[in-house]
Amino acid sequence: MASDQPSETGEDTYEQFEERVERISNVGNAAGILRWDQEVMMPEGGTPARAKQLSTLSSISHELLTAEETGDYLDELEGEDLDGDREAVVRETRREYDRATTVPEELVTEISETTSNAHPVWMEAREEDEFSTFAPTLEKLVSLKREYAEHIDPDADPYAVLFADYEPYLDLETAERVLTRLREELVPLISAIDDSDTEIETDAFSGEFDDDTQEELARDALDTLGYDWDRGRIDTAPHPFSSGTQFDARVTTRFDEEDLLGSITSTIHEFGHANYTLGLPDEGYGTPLGEARDLTVHESQSRLWENHVGRSEAFWERFLPQVRERFPEVEATPREAYESANQVYDDNLIRVEADELTYHLHIVIRFEIERDLIAGDLDVEEVPEVWNDKYEEYLGVRPETDAEGCLQDIHWSHGSFGYFPTYSLGSVLAAQLYDAATDAVGDVDSRVREGEFDELNGWLREEIHAHGKRYTTPELIERATGKAYSADDFLAYAKAKYGELYDLEAY
Amino acid sequence: MASDQPSETGEDTYEQFEERVERISNVGNAAGILRWDQEVMMPEGGTPARAKQLSTLSSISHELLTAEETGDYLDELEGEDLDGDREAVVRETRREYDRATTVPEELVTEISETTSNAHPVWMEAREEDEFSTFAPTLEKLVSLKREYAEHIDPDADPYAVLFADYEPYLDLETAERVLTRLREELVPLISAIDDSDTEIETDAFSGEFDDDTQEELARDALDTLGYDWDRGRIDTAPHPFSSGTQFDARVTTRFDEEDLLGSITSTIHEFGHANYTLGLPDEGYGTPLGEARDLTVHESQSRLWENHVGRSEAFWERFLPQVRERFPEVEATPREAYESANQVYDDNLIRVEADELTYHLHIVIRFEIERDLIAGDLDVEEVPEVWNDKYEEYLGVRPETDAEGCLQDIHWSHGSFGYFPTYSLGSVLAAQLYDAATDAVGDVDSRVREGEFDELNGWLREEIHAHGKRYTTPELIERATGKAYSADDFLAYAKAKYGELYDLEAY
Repeated sequence: MASDQPSETGEDTYEQFEERVERISNVGNAAGILRWDQEVMMPEGGTPARAKQLSTLSSISHELLTAEETGDYLDELEGEDLDGDREAVVRETRREYDRATTVPEELVTEISETTSNAHPVWMEAREEDEFSTFAPTLEKLVSLKREYAEHIDPDADPYAVLFADYEPYLDLETAERVLTRLREELVPLISAIDDSDTEIETDAFSGEFDDDTQEELARDALDTLGYDWDRGRIDTAPHPFSSGTQFDARVTTRFDEEDLLGSITSTIHEFGHANYTLGLPDEGYGTPLGEARDLTVHESQSRLWENHVGRSEAFWERFLPQVRERFPEVEATPREAYESANQVYDDNLIRVEADELTYHLHIVIRFEIERDLIAGDLDVEEVPEVWNDKYEEYLGVRPETDAEGCLQDIHWSHGSFGYFPTYSLGSVLAAQLYDAATDAVGDVDSRVREGEFDELNGWLREEIHAHGKRYTTPELIERATGKAYSADDFLAYAKAKYGELYDLEAY
Repeated sequence: MASDQPSETGEDTYEQFEERVERISNVGNAAGILRWDQEVMMPEGGTPARAKQLSTLSSISHELLTAEETGDYLDELEGEDLDGDREAVVRETRREYDRATTVPEELVTEISETTSNAHPVWMEAREEDEFSTFAPTLEKLVSLKREYAEHIDPDADPYAVLFADYEPYLDLETAERVLTRLREELVPLISAIDDSDTEIETDAFSGEFDDDTQEELARDALDTLGYDWDRGRIDTAPHPFSSGTQFDARVTTRFDEEDLLGSITSTIHEFGHANYTLGLPDEGYGTPLGEARDLTVHESQSRLWENHVGRSEAFWERFLPQVRERFPEVEATPREAYESANQVYDDNLIRVEADELTYHLHIVIRFEIERDLIAGDLDVEEVPEVWNDKYEEYLGVRPETDAEGCLQDIHWSHGSFGYFPTYSLGSVLAAQLYDAATDAVGDVDSRVREGEFDELNGWLREEIHAHGKRYTTPELIERATGKAYSADDFLAYAKAKYGELYDLEAY
């Protein structure tokens, strides 16, 4: 009997450890509901109390994570011979633990206070189109985040450390290689589109569309894609998002009377996020095995549904009759709808209004600037000019104001340096996954045309969703697609699609 | 300098103590949002995850409350010379602490598991009209709750201990005296009404009323009463409730196409609860100073608005034109609306459908039965017969089934013995407060007729809401009304109102 003791002890330790992990997860999920409520339901006067509730949950969670016991469990379990699932739970928790314990409390508090104060300053700067109003705050945030990175890993490139907060397992070299290829190959592609004489349809969805009927149509779209209403709901929010767990993953969208297409694509985008969450295994709830891999994979799911499904000709053949049932005034053909959903803008300055191609150049510009800022290779005061120069160089347009330039996005006011790249990395991954799904289950496009999404989604469930955080991002990609992560599939897709749309000889 | 040390230490202790109290409060308020969401917004599939989130928050809160530090703070602070506010925070926390620490974990868990399992058993018993299905569970709950009371105070009447979970400061003798007077004086009053030849209008609101327009009317009612939409919202729920904090107090209601009056009175009832919550002082948020006194006071607020305002002739003079704007088919006069809102039913068996008078006899019956069950003076198996006998004796009606009899309410399946009395105690208090408000600010009725609620609400804010848990319930009542809590005002109100309505000679 005595010889059984050590493994029994290990068992007990793992169970205690997992109980703690689940507790942290439940506190986080409770906070998620509070944040959803705040964006979607809460009356405005609730703000002061909600801030205190969220701050309390956040510090409870932080204390549970950074407690000595957590470290002791991790130390002990790392010496055990665990199965793959448990090993993954330990690996992921170790990562969180190390990040949370190496940064001093005071620095965490200072960053949190600085970002809270930064938000109104950024708002004011943007409203007044005055970069100098925001510059000192940005300067401070750059310096604080550099210090933060230094604590986590003094030997690493600080930008790589920050990037790893959003995308822990895809190394920065890989990310940079992908982003560089996007720049190198999309700049000439977009240029060829600009030079093309082909005029595609752009007005398939022009008109005025009332919000209530748009909401019914958004529900139609979610029905068509197979959203599980027993575990979800749709509401409106000024900045659409999705949130929740595999038991309850909600989407939000917004309606603009003059932008029917925008509400459809935004709804499908958020469906992609929620559909990933809903595919996480029920039995993994409460541990990393039941949680989504990081931002690149999450964004791959929203972009796969938004772009590869929702902007395909096949989808519009399927969905246009449903649009017409709600809005008989839409007279476009599926081809015209398809073209309108894929027009490439030659004069757009705003990231969130960009099309599927130019979007990536907006990201590349932000990436190059924030990387140089954190490296100390660029001064904050130079940002507006560098920003405008890059827009001119990559996109052929030059912002006339900073409000339409480097002040347009909220991210830096949050101190979120390293976040932007994951948008593009996710889109690139979406193409690789869509191709692999097509290889595995046959012609997905024709299934989309028939409104059959089960095979595609079944493949995503099995290859991506079901694994939660079991594998690191590169492992997950390689297992699902049989090859390493790269921009190949995305670029091939982009060239074929837009070469056909704009009748480009060289593509 | 040294002489300052002790009080500085006391100051530090109080601050640390208050931080802990606020933390517990924030966790509880977060759980409140999760419960609101569960009833109002959550898709059904979310249940398993929500149960885990709530259970985690509940155990975190329990651990914070019962931790040794909490006891140490309390011991130390009870030796200090604190101001009244701090003394109240210590008193209220001590009470919670003592209750939470004297009951063994295992018993808490067993009660919690038994009540979870009891709910479906009660549902089944009620559906099948089979009391024997529920009897063993009820037996077990009675025994567990008796054990629970024994741990808290072995020398006290166990029912008094349970009652104090819902109404900590009103002693059971007072409660019993009030309930006995209600029985003694309402039985003959109701009997006189039954015997009266006077026919009052009962059909002012008959017809079919669509839900959407009813919702608009519910908003009209809340507007009329002065609900603060910046800190509230209205939604529907199968069992209407209100919840929240002074920064965000929400109401729910329900709509039945055939019961327009029911949705109006239910909305006003929940307004009363929310209006109390909204009147709690902002600066007390997070401590007992910013929390509502217990169930009797809370129910006094809902009943004051529902009955003394919402069922008054003055109110219908004011509000009927608004009803007619939404539902032109309502042709009643204010007097007819008033009569319909106050008809006394002579054959109703169901508590939640009872009128303002018979309601209290439903409560008295439950009180007498649960008191005897906990005292061991009544066996569970005797409950149906005793129930039916009492209905016959007090109300002149005898249930033909247990589903319409002792199985109708959910409370006992929750193990909530001692809860029922607070409904009547609250109504009784409502009358005492309404009279005191009238004494203080002048004729409230004529203000209601003008749609002016500021004076009444101002008085309630100042005398009741603003104090949070600063005073015990008897202190609060005595300060607000200048006299001890009693049934006098309620009985005088009831006799005058129904004497006039039913033209009763003796009243």
